[in-house]
Amino acid sequence: MTSPIYLTNETRQSNIQPDLLIDHALVISKDKIVDVIPQSSIHNLYPKTESNVEITNLGQSLLMPGFVNAHCHAAMTLLRGVNDNLSLQDWLDQVIYPLEQKFVSDEFVYQGTQHAIAEMLRSGTTCFQDMYFMPDQASKAVHEAGIRANIGLMVVENKTSWADDAEDCISKGLKVRDDFKQLDLIDFSFAPHAIYSVSEQTLEKLVMLSNELAINLQIHLHECPTEINDSLQKHKQRPFELATKLALLSPQFNTAHMTQLIDNEIEEIAQSGTHVIHCPQSNLKLASGVCPVVKLLDAGVNVAIGTDGAASNNDLDMLSEIQSAVWLSSRAIHDKFEGEVNILEETHLNNQPSLTAYQGLYAGTMGGAKALGISDKVGSLEIGKQADFISIDLSSIEAQPVYDPISQVVYSTSRDQVTHVWVAGKCLLDNRQLTTLNESLIIKNTRQWQKKISSYLKSL
Amino acid sequence: MTSPIYLTNETRQSNIQPDLLIDHALVISKDKIVDVIPQSSIHNLYPKTESNVEITNLGQSLLMPGFVNAHCHAAMTLLRGVNDNLSLQDWLDQVIYPLEQKFVSDEFVYQGTQHAIAEMLRSGTTCFQDMYFMPDQASKAVHEAGIRANIGLMVVENKTSWADDAEDCISKGLKVRDDFKQLDLIDFSFAPHAIYSVSEQTLEKLVMLSNELAINLQIHLHECPTEINDSLQKHKQRPFELATKLALLSPQFNTAHMTQLIDNEIEEIAQSGTHVIHCPQSNLKLASGVCPVVKLLDAGVNVAIGTDGAASNNDLDMLSEIQSAVWLSSRAIHDKFEGEVNILEETHLNNQPSLTAYQGLYAGTMGGAKALGISDKVGSLEIGKQADFISIDLSSIEAQPVYDPISQVVYSTSRDQVTHVWVAGKCLLDNRQLTTLNESLIIKNTRQWQKKISSYLKSL
Repeated sequence: MTSPIYLTNETRQSNIQPDLLIDHALVISKDKIVDVIPQSSIHNLYPKTESNVEITNLGQSLLMPGFVNAHCHAAMTLLRGVNDNLSLQDWLDQVIYPLEQKFVSDEFVYQGTQHAIAEMLRSGTTCFQDMYFMPDQASKAVHEAGIRANIGLMVVENKTSWADDAEDCISKGLKVRDDFKQLDLIDFSFAPHAIYSVSEQTLEKLVMLSNELAINLQIHLHECPTEINDSLQKHKQRPFELATKLALLSPQFNTAHMTQLIDNEIEEIAQSGTHVIHCPQSNLKLASGVCPVVKLLDAGVNVAIGTDGAASNNDLDMLSEIQSAVWLSSRAIHDKFEGEVNILEETHLNNQPSLTAYQGLYAGTMGGAKALGISDKVGSLEIGKQADFISIDLSSIEAQPVYDPISQVVYSTSRDQVTHVWVAGKCLLDNRQLTTLNESLIIKNTRQWQKKISSYLKSL
Repeated sequence: MTSPIYLTNETRQSNIQPDLLIDHALVISKDKIVDVIPQSSIHNLYPKTESNVEITNLGQSLLMPGFVNAHCHAAMTLLRGVNDNLSLQDWLDQVIYPLEQKFVSDEFVYQGTQHAIAEMLRSGTTCFQDMYFMPDQASKAVHEAGIRANIGLMVVENKTSWADDAEDCISKGLKVRDDFKQLDLIDFSFAPHAIYSVSEQTLEKLVMLSNELAINLQIHLHECPTEINDSLQKHKQRPFELATKLALLSPQFNTAHMTQLIDNEIEEIAQSGTHVIHCPQSNLKLASGVCPVVKLLDAGVNVAIGTDGAASNNDLDMLSEIQSAVWLSSRAIHDKFEGEVNILEETHLNNQPSLTAYQGLYAGTMGGAKALGISDKVGSLEIGKQADFISIDLSSIEAQPVYDPISQVVYSTSRDQVTHVWVAGKCLLDNRQLTTLNESLIIKNTRQWQKKISSYLKSL
C-alpha cells in the first residue's frame, strides 16, 4: 500500500504531534502490518517479480488506523430518525421502549446490525462496541461481515424479547460468548444497561464475572441530569458513588456518556484507569449534556468516541463524530462570555478549539482501542499490529489544498472520501464497494422494517 | 423533475412544519418553476410526444431549494487549513493578514473563488454572499460558473492589493457593480469589514449609498469578546451601539457572527429588521462564541447561515453547517447543568434540540434568501420563483430508513448525496459532475498556490 501514512504510536501522549510519514508504504502479510517503508524502496525490498507481492497504489490518499466506535447500539439503525424532538427519558419511554417491545426479534437485530456494519465500513470504522439484545445475532452479522467488534452482553432486570431477567441475560450472554469466543475478530464485554435499570446484586455479580473472565464491562453512566436527580432522590447518592461502592471502577470499566461530572469524580476516574466514551452528537440531540473531555484528558483519563445508536444521532459516522467532539470542546462554549465581556480573561482565548484535531483523531482510534482493551492489537499503524486501516482520498475539490493532512481529515473530510477499508488484512471496502455485504439486500430488508414500523406508528 | 419535494412557503413562520409533498414533480421552464404537480399527472399534463418536454426521473431523491450561504470569503479556500489552533485576533494578525498581503492578487481571487464555487455546487449551495478583495475577479468567476451570488464590495481603511483606502474601495467597487450589474445572477452589497477597521465617516457614507442604490450592507459584527472589549476601552461603547448611532440597522443590513449579544440588542435587531448570519463552525474554531440563535428567532429576527471562509471552517459545506447550527442550539449547551443538577428545572429538558431540523433547513435556505434581499426570487420551491434547487439521494445505506425526510437531510446526509444542482433552471451539477467548471484545472491551480504558500510559510 503506498500513500502518506498517519501512524499513531501508542506510547505517546495524546496531546503531541502524530507520526505523519509522507510517501511511505504499508506492508501487510496475512492479518498483520509487517513493515512501514519509504515508497522509494518498495521495488528493492518487494520486487514485483515475486509472485506473492501485490502492490496497491492509492494515489493522493492518507492511510490511517480505522476508527473504533466505542459505543453503539447497531441494530437501532432501523429506527434512524423515528423521533428527533424529545429529551432522553421521554424519548426512551415514549418512543424507543414501546418500539423495541413491539419489534425487537432475532431478525430485527441481525438485519439491523448488518445495516449498521455496512454504514460503519463505508465511513471508515473497523471496530465497534455493541450494546443490544440478541448478541448472538449481532455476533453472526459481525462474523459474516468480517468487521472487528466487541459485543456487549446486555443486562437488564426487566423481561425483554431476549431474556426473562438479569440472571437470564447473563446465562444467555455467556452461552453466546462460548459459541463465538474462538473467533479472532470478536471480543465480548458485559453491558449492564445503567445503574438505574440493573440491581446492585446484579452489578456485584457482573464485577465478579468480569474479573474472573477478564472481560470488560460497559455501562451508560451519568448520561443526563435526570439520571442524577432521580438517584439523589431515591438513594441520596449520585450513580457514580454507587458505581464506586460496587467496585466497578477499573481499567476494564467503560463508561458511556458521562456528561454530568464533578471534579472529584474526574479524579477517581483517572486514578482507577476507567475509560470514558464521549458521544457528543447523541448527547446534544437528546439534550443530555456535554462530557467535559478536556478536563478528563488533562486529568489523564483515556477518552474514546462513540456514535451511540443511529436512533439518537442519526448516523454512525465517526468522522463527523470526531469533528463534533472537537467543535464541542471549543472555549466558545465552555467559557461564559455573555454579558461579562469586559471582565474576560484574554488568556483564555488562546489555542482554540481546546481539543486539537490530532487529539480528536487519537480519541477516535487509539482511545477506542484502549477502552476496549485491544490497543496492543489495533488503534494505530505499527509493525506487528493487526492490519486494520483505511484509505482517505485527499485528491478531491473538497480536500484541496492540503497544508496539514490531520487537520484535513478532522475538519474537512466527509465519509464518502473513505475509499478503502481493511480489517485484519482483508479488504472490506474496495473503492467504495463493500466486499462482504450485499448492499441492495440490506436496503431491501431495511425498507421492509420501515414499512412495518411506520404503519405501527401511524396506528397509534 | 420527479421526486418527493420539500417546498418552503415563505409566508409561513419558520417554526412550523414544512410543506413536504411525496411523489410530486417540479415543472421548469427556462429559468423558472412553472408548476408543482403529482407525478401521476405528468403524462397527461406534459405528454412526452411534445418535443419541448424533457422528463428527468431522480428516483428516491428529495428535491429542495438550494442552500444560500449567507457569509463567505470564497477565495480564502486557498488557505484551507493553514492554521487551526489560534483564536480569531491572533489568527488574523499572525496568519491571515500576512498571507493576504503576500499572496492576494487578481489570479488568487479568481482561482480561489472558482475552487470555492466548485465546492459549494458539489454540496448543494446555489447562492452565496462573498466578502473579499478583487470583487471583479469574484464576479467573473461567478458569472462563468453560472452560480448565483451577492458580491460584497469590501471596504477597509488600510491599503491593500485591491485599493489604497476606503474611498478607493468604494469607487473601485462601484465600478465593478457598473460592469456586472446587468447580469441576472449577480447582486452587489457593500461589505465594510468591521466597525473596528472602518471609520465612522466611511460607514456614514456607505449607509447613504446603500439607501440611494437600494443595495445591502454586510459587516462582521460582535464576532468575539475581544471586539467588544477593545471597543469598550477605546470608545466606551459596544460596537453595536455605534452601528445603531450610525443608522446601520435596517432590513438591508446583514450582520455576520453576532456571538456577543445582550437582550436589548436582540430587541433592536428585531425591531429594525436587521438580519443575523450565524456561522457556527467558524465561531467554534476561532473560539469566538456562540450566536444566540434561539433567542433571536424567538424575538422574530431572521437568521441565515454562513460557512465563513474555508480558512476558518475548514469547508464550505452548508449541510454540515446547518447540522452544527442545530447541535449548537441544544439545551445541553445552553442550560447550565454542571454541579447544579438537583435544582434543575425539568421543564427545560423537553423538545430538544432547541432548533428543529426544519428551522435549521429554513435558515439555510429562506433565511439566507431573506438576508440577501432575494426571497421573492429564491429560497423556496414556489411557482414563479427561480429554479434554484437541488436533488439529494436518499436511497443509500447512509440514508435508509427514511421516516422523516427533513430529519434525514439535517441529521444524516453528507454532501456527496447531493447529486444534482440547478441554478436559474440550468443544471450545474449533473450526477456529481460539474457542467460549467473544469474540476481538474481548478485542482491543478490550487496545488500551485499550495506549493507557493507552503514554501513561504516554511521560509518564515
